[in-house]
Amino acid sequence: MNNTRVLLASRPVGMPTRDNWSIETVPAEQPVEGEFLAEVLYISLDPAMRGWVKDAKSYLPPVGIDEVMRAGGVARVIESRNPAFAVGDHVVGTTGVQSHWLSNGKGARKVDPAAAPLPKYLGVLGMPGMTAYFGILDIGAIQEGETVLVSGAAGAVGSLVGQIAKLKGCRVVGIAGGKEKCDYLTGELGFDAAIDYKSESLYPALKAACPKGIDVYFDNVGGETLDAALAMLRFKGRVALCGAISQYNSTEPVRGPQNYLSLLINRGRMEGFIVFDFEKDFPRFARDMSQWLAEGKLQSREHIVKGIETFPDTLLMLFDGRNQGKLVIEV
Amino acid sequence: MNNTRVLLASRPVGMPTRDNWSIETVPAEQPVEGEFLAEVLYISLDPAMRGWVKDAKSYLPPVGIDEVMRAGGVARVIESRNPAFAVGDHVVGTTGVQSHWLSNGKGARKVDPAAAPLPKYLGVLGMPGMTAYFGILDIGAIQEGETVLVSGAAGAVGSLVGQIAKLKGCRVVGIAGGKEKCDYLTGELGFDAAIDYKSESLYPALKAACPKGIDVYFDNVGGETLDAALAMLRFKGRVALCGAISQYNSTEPVRGPQNYLSLLINRGRMEGFIVFDFEKDFPRFARDMSQWLAEGKLQSREHIVKGIETFPDTLLMLFDGRNQGKLVIEV
Repeated sequence: MNNTRVLLASRPVGMPTRDNWSIETVPAEQPVEGEFLAEVLYISLDPAMRGWVKDAKSYLPPVGIDEVMRAGGVARVIESRNPAFAVGDHVVGTTGVQSHWLSNGKGARKVDPAAAPLPKYLGVLGMPGMTAYFGILDIGAIQEGETVLVSGAAGAVGSLVGQIAKLKGCRVVGIAGGKEKCDYLTGELGFDAAIDYKSESLYPALKAACPKGIDVYFDNVGGETLDAALAMLRFKGRVALCGAISQYNSTEPVRGPQNYLSLLINRGRMEGFIVFDFEKDFPRFARDMSQWLAEGKLQSREHIVKGIETFPDTLLMLFDGRNQGKLVIEV
Repeated sequence: MNNTRVLLASRPVGMPTRDNWSIETVPAEQPVEGEFLAEVLYISLDPAMRGWVKDAKSYLPPVGIDEVMRAGGVARVIESRNPAFAVGDHVVGTTGVQSHWLSNGKGARKVDPAAAPLPKYLGVLGMPGMTAYFGILDIGAIQEGETVLVSGAAGAVGSLVGQIAKLKGCRVVGIAGGKEKCDYLTGELGFDAAIDYKSESLYPALKAACPKGIDVYFDNVGGETLDAALAMLRFKGRVALCGAISQYNSTEPVRGPQNYLSLLINRGRMEGFIVFDFEKDFPRFARDMSQWLAEGKLQSREHIVKGIETFPDTLLMLFDGRNQGKLVIEV
């Protein structure tokens, strides 16, 4: 049995290119006692991947050169010498960008393919869902009636942030690129307003959409958008720092938020978070999200691209905004 | 009876100059029913004054052109038509930079000249004391054994921040300008280490002084120092934003913290605060600080300059660091 896998060949400078990756097919390793081998069905593509291939201190060690690229995925067990996992079980875990995953079971979690389509376990029921849920509820600490702004609003995380905030009675404004995405936000997802950063001037559009200012800004992008949101922060406003996709591929120094003193003037708080820190609260997440999904209160979509060999190109969709919803590779 | 007062003549661009102020002597206004007239004895000079004369939205409205410059002060009542204040009472309040203060009593607080020298009510027992106390305890949320960094460490607020953190069992590192100030920190105030930003290179000095990184950074200065502290922030670290004196007189755009994504990587929090918000907790402050002072556990010094007409020049001492301790004008 062969394993097709994507390795990090060199560290990207700026936007990743084909040359930064190598794709190879090697014999799949066989499980020893305590391990299982699973065939990977879906692989999650996330903006955080850009950080994982940087040679810098972060919340996870960087992926090494010639190592399999790190990724979350859904897989089906095909051989097992681990009593906790049986052949045929579906599991999510850090599979890596490869067709076959050898695991000792650590961090692997069984999922039910009958309860939801498998790609959803990489989106609304997976890490993006958790990121949205804990970020807006625990870090953002939204209250009914507040104004919530979210950037990257049509993305896997942002679209859920906005919907959860709507469920909690907030006024929700999303920032996304292009009319189609903005229509999706206000049409299908029920956002109160959407701003197309590609065609609108950010400050006036924000003033129109958030006449009372911003209580909570869920930041996926950083850069100019973070500055604009800070400028409009209300008394005791919060900024939940989830990411800074505008800065990830930049070869310039990171743009720090010039308006950070708005935090002082308005007694605001800017706080970073990583979903792993909420592990003890995962059951609360699973209960709430499953219920909202079952009640039809949450919509999510996946953008599925076929073929592991497309990884180097598919990844770029995240950075130029071509994906609509959670980006997943079907192996 | 005459009132000598300092008015804002024009808005400073960059460092305030003599031309930005006018000094005049006019007849003192007489109190009507409900008011008192007090002779101002000491006036507090604070970095925040630079913000108050800027024509920008802030936590207080800007001082208007040809208005008396806003300032805290200690005054003695000399005429009263307000039953809550008797002639001879000593009061602190927003007296303004003038020799005579007409007040309706709102925001005026009686103080006991026998309990502490009057200038202390503008320092350790006044706004700087409150700022240090609530900033490091409530916003910084320091815990025993943590490493605390404070900039502007020899100033009115910073020197108290460090001492309070020491009282709570933290390792305390201060940043100040010049050997004399640094010796004061480690010698008289008991800081564990001091960094002279005028002669030392910030990053290596911080690495040496904070080998485990920084749990709490109390920021009085902004700029490069904030960036360096963010770079060394530990897991769940906090930044208490008190001010940004390095930016107040700059004619360049504010320098945003490039390393703000350290908040994400380390799940850190950066939070602004204004002491007025803690009004309900003032009794806790008064109780703790008075006790620490009485027990000799807190040291504070005041830098007293004589003459209200020195205000335009004396103010500049805050920005070039010539003051040692709380800067006060004796009227």
